[in-house]
Amino acid sequence: MRTKVNLQGAVMPLGVSWGSAEAGIKKPGRLDVGLIACERPAAAAAVFTRNLFCAAPVTVGREVLRETGGMVSGVVVNSGCANAATGEAGMANARAMAGAARRACGADGAFLPCSTGTIGVQLPMDRLAAGVEAAARGMEATAQGFHGFSRCILTTDTHEKLAWESFEAGGRVARIVGCAKGSGMIHPDMATLLAFVATDVEAAPDLLLEIFRRAVNRSLNCLTVDGDTSTNDTAIVLASGGSGMRLQHGSEAALAFEAKLTGVTQSLARQLARDGEGATKLVEICVRGAKDFASARTVGLTIARSPLVKTAIYGRDANWGRILCAAGYSGVALDPQKVSLRMGPLLLFENGAPVAFEEDEALVVLGGEEVRIELDLGGGSSEATVWTCDLTEKYIEINGSYRT
Amino acid sequence: MRTKVNLQGAVMPLGVSWGSAEAGIKKPGRLDVGLIACERPAAAAAVFTRNLFCAAPVTVGREVLRETGGMVSGVVVNSGCANAATGEAGMANARAMAGAARRACGADGAFLPCSTGTIGVQLPMDRLAAGVEAAARGMEATAQGFHGFSRCILTTDTHEKLAWESFEAGGRVARIVGCAKGSGMIHPDMATLLAFVATDVEAAPDLLLEIFRRAVNRSLNCLTVDGDTSTNDTAIVLASGGSGMRLQHGSEAALAFEAKLTGVTQSLARQLARDGEGATKLVEICVRGAKDFASARTVGLTIARSPLVKTAIYGRDANWGRILCAAGYSGVALDPQKVSLRMGPLLLFENGAPVAFEEDEALVVLGGEEVRIELDLGGGSSEATVWTCDLTEKYIEINGSYRT
Repeated sequence: MRTKVNLQGAVMPLGVSWGSAEAGIKKPGRLDVGLIACERPAAAAAVFTRNLFCAAPVTVGREVLRETGGMVSGVVVNSGCANAATGEAGMANARAMAGAARRACGADGAFLPCSTGTIGVQLPMDRLAAGVEAAARGMEATAQGFHGFSRCILTTDTHEKLAWESFEAGGRVARIVGCAKGSGMIHPDMATLLAFVATDVEAAPDLLLEIFRRAVNRSLNCLTVDGDTSTNDTAIVLASGGSGMRLQHGSEAALAFEAKLTGVTQSLARQLARDGEGATKLVEICVRGAKDFASARTVGLTIARSPLVKTAIYGRDANWGRILCAAGYSGVALDPQKVSLRMGPLLLFENGAPVAFEEDEALVVLGGEEVRIELDLGGGSSEATVWTCDLTEKYIEINGSYRT
Repeated sequence: MRTKVNLQGAVMPLGVSWGSAEAGIKKPGRLDVGLIACERPAAAAAVFTRNLFCAAPVTVGREVLRETGGMVSGVVVNSGCANAATGEAGMANARAMAGAARRACGADGAFLPCSTGTIGVQLPMDRLAAGVEAAARGMEATAQGFHGFSRCILTTDTHEKLAWESFEAGGRVARIVGCAKGSGMIHPDMATLLAFVATDVEAAPDLLLEIFRRAVNRSLNCLTVDGDTSTNDTAIVLASGGSGMRLQHGSEAALAFEAKLTGVTQSLARQLARDGEGATKLVEICVRGAKDFASARTVGLTIARSPLVKTAIYGRDANWGRILCAAGYSGVALDPQKVSLRMGPLLLFENGAPVAFEEDEALVVLGGEEVRIELDLGGGSSEATVWTCDLTEKYIEINGSYRT
């Protein structure tokens, strides 16, 4: 388990600053309000939950992006209260929260609000407003500021998730940093839980959204912890333009940016899976030989959400039948006679029949902190990689007593 | 937890006998082979798993029904080995198992084979054959015989599941008895795990199948323990005709039979949910106000398979936000403003907003062995009831060490 964060080598995007504060929404001593502010209105793109009981800040965030044409000054976020299933009062609170952030930062443009925490509870607006002001007073465009922000969004996470990249194109250097939170109620079908990415490239909002959607599709949407799709899930990217590197459709810079952005969001997805509630292992599942990416991902996610597969991996049991069983009920057409399965380097199943293996070797493969499963469907040339974690008694303990 | 079975009042269908034996496929001291035999070939109907990695006995069972036109002499079943993912050798073993049962019973018609247990292991055919012969020597048309059979199919179940009914129509009395097994790897999309029903009505195989499908759809297909759809799931009904009550399409007898058959299979579904791996509570979820039965069932099953809902119920936490959240990602269209939610007698959510309630009352409601959730979508006049159980540390313990 990583307990210390090493931000050495992380270079912050120009024109973006970060703030965080203790507003007293969570227990005392924990950061729970955060701000990202851009010097001037930045291109923003977001992917939101498709849950019909979406939270008030999701509805308000969609409104803000529509009204501003995707140019915003920043993001305000709180943890400890999801502001979901809170009716009209919740909508008013989400709008007030965004307004308070804009005023506190003296910004020209609007702010996107985000919340995470318990569903069905109203935000304590007085404490929240004081927290937003405190966060605004301490804004920094530094790695420390970014680090503080990354901590204020955590709930049952045991540590922050951070990733960064920089790259060169057309003689200019640009930077991307990202952080995310999420430990339970994690399953794609949207961007997974809260993820914030900031970069100093310059891009039109529609191009930024197009690139961001593809990146999220190969990263956060390839992740499941428990199959539960939250009411609040949101992934946002802000492009400050501070680097002077401008992206055009299909340009060298746009391609380089997309590759690095995908890397940053995939790193966050792996970190989220590794820190799934109660997890002891990261499980990476690579499905090959599918007719297209979507089929490969569906098979992978079906395996990844199977409680039987996840408990077997926890118990270091190479019970490969459960993996094939999950593939068989995924809804994707496949021919069992063409399927082969490996766990780490061990071949377990080939051409419709089991392959003998040493249980001792399987114990070694399953003994590490990362387990890799490779399933070849033998039915095409597409593949997808998905991430999950094992399922342990600790998950039950955490979620059987979340509010108490 | 029920530990003793009271079969008082159970009347056995005429013309059907039952046998069981210890073949040594499971641990010593446990019944693991069973037979159901009909005096003369009986109408049979079956619903099988839709898992593409279906077990050899499922494939052979489908063949037998096709070849015989749905008239068979009985069923042979083993536990301890699923005979799934076993290639051509597994297919030959399933056929040999059915043949051995027919010979041992001296039957005119074919037998349907069923297996349950570990995936990817070949059947020990010598021991199995000896077990089939032993079971055939001890056949009885009594409640004791039925009880023995119901025990030989168990795996991680903590007790047998039994149900029975008798009814009158047209001056004749007919009987239905059923038993089932299943504790983990349980989710519909087929008949759930192994369920065997015998009756002494007389019916054409196609009418029997039509009625059985509807009954299973409202019972075993409304059940989930962990969302895993097994490779072996099979529900079979045998109609011996011994009562002399003949069913015709739409007749009074057919309607009475369908009502009682649905009752028997619903009773088995509730018993299966209550004995889900590691369960401490039965959870019954009634979804009303849906546009059709399928939508209501989808919403219900999505809630029922949410690990967050199941752990909250285990922890006696009235965390209703998780229930709405699951409804919101079920894929069924709904208007959050029209939704209302009750847990037991407590109203928790109405018209898009939370309703205040006493946590103490919620603790009482959640303290019992049965928890009933009622969700009204306010969007139609159809409803469905589904069954599941809570998710506990014990589920992890059982499945983290199934083979060890």
